[in-house]
Amino acid sequence: MSKTPDNLLEFLNGTFALYPEEIKQYEEAFIHSSNNSLLNNQRLAFLGDSVLRLIIREHFFKKNSVSDIGELTKICGEEKETNKNFANIAFKLELVKYMNIENPPLDYETNETLNAEVLEALFGAIYLNRGFEDTRRIAEKYILTNLEP
Amino acid sequence: MSKTPDNLLEFLNGTFALYPEEIKQYEEAFIHSSNNSLLNNQRLAFLGDSVLRLIIREHFFKKNSVSDIGELTKICGEEKETNKNFANIAFKLELVKYMNIENPPLDYETNETLNAEVLEALFGAIYLNRGFEDTRRIAEKYILTNLEP
Repeated sequence: MSKTPDNLLEFLNGTFALYPEEIKQYEEAFIHSSNNSLLNNQRLAFLGDSVLRLIIREHFFKKNSVSDIGELTKICGEEKETNKNFANIAFKLELVKYMNIENPPLDYETNETLNAEVLEALFGAIYLNRGFEDTRRIAEKYILTNLEP
Repeated sequence: MSKTPDNLLEFLNGTFALYPEEIKQYEEAFIHSSNNSLLNNQRLAFLGDSVLRLIIREHFFKKNSVSDIGELTKICGEEKETNKNFANIAFKLELVKYMNIENPPLDYETNETLNAEVLEALFGAIYLNRGFEDTRRIAEKYILTNLEP
């Protein structure tokens, strides 16, 4: 493990009211895969992607109770569950500031994949630490409101 | 809504110990999309797919704590979260027996997509009725054990 990203705890406390006893998973969520380390945020992003997908699908499933499946697929798959949306939320939260990234690519502050993956990994860590219901409550505030038009 | 599939309640009680006060979502999970009805199991399958995906990813994430992301992606995406696996579980549970399907295609008992979708839709309905933790417990027994080699 490389160094803990600066101010990560302060950020988790201040923004999400998270006070993790075990900080390691949150640190892992912010380790870029280009670092020379087996431990990086890719596994958490893989998990977090499915956490966010379920929360988003449930939201639009309930909101669009009469829409047909084609419309629902379009809303979720093509519009909401995209790298671009997740990256935009990561930009708003300035997640990249807390990244542990040894050799940042030139575009790391604007790179959509890199930023989307940090958001997914953060929600993977929140899910493992807090369980599904808490994660949904947090996602309602920080994810779903940012997906509305 | 067409007729309630025969013995659906008996099946839900007997196999999953489910005693739904509100049977409508379970009925919906078994309505085939070829029926001449706006109400069919496609929306629930869309939701249920993301429920099962999260449960499966968490399982293999925890089980393979040292595997790299490539291995995890391969296990989940290419091996476990497939129509073929979901269809095989649906075959074991004989879900097709409870389908509300007006004009069954010739191969409906063996059609992988049709059977996988019924399983996904059933877990979408279980999730909406019972919440995530209960759904995970049920999936551990009926899905995860059937995904092991």
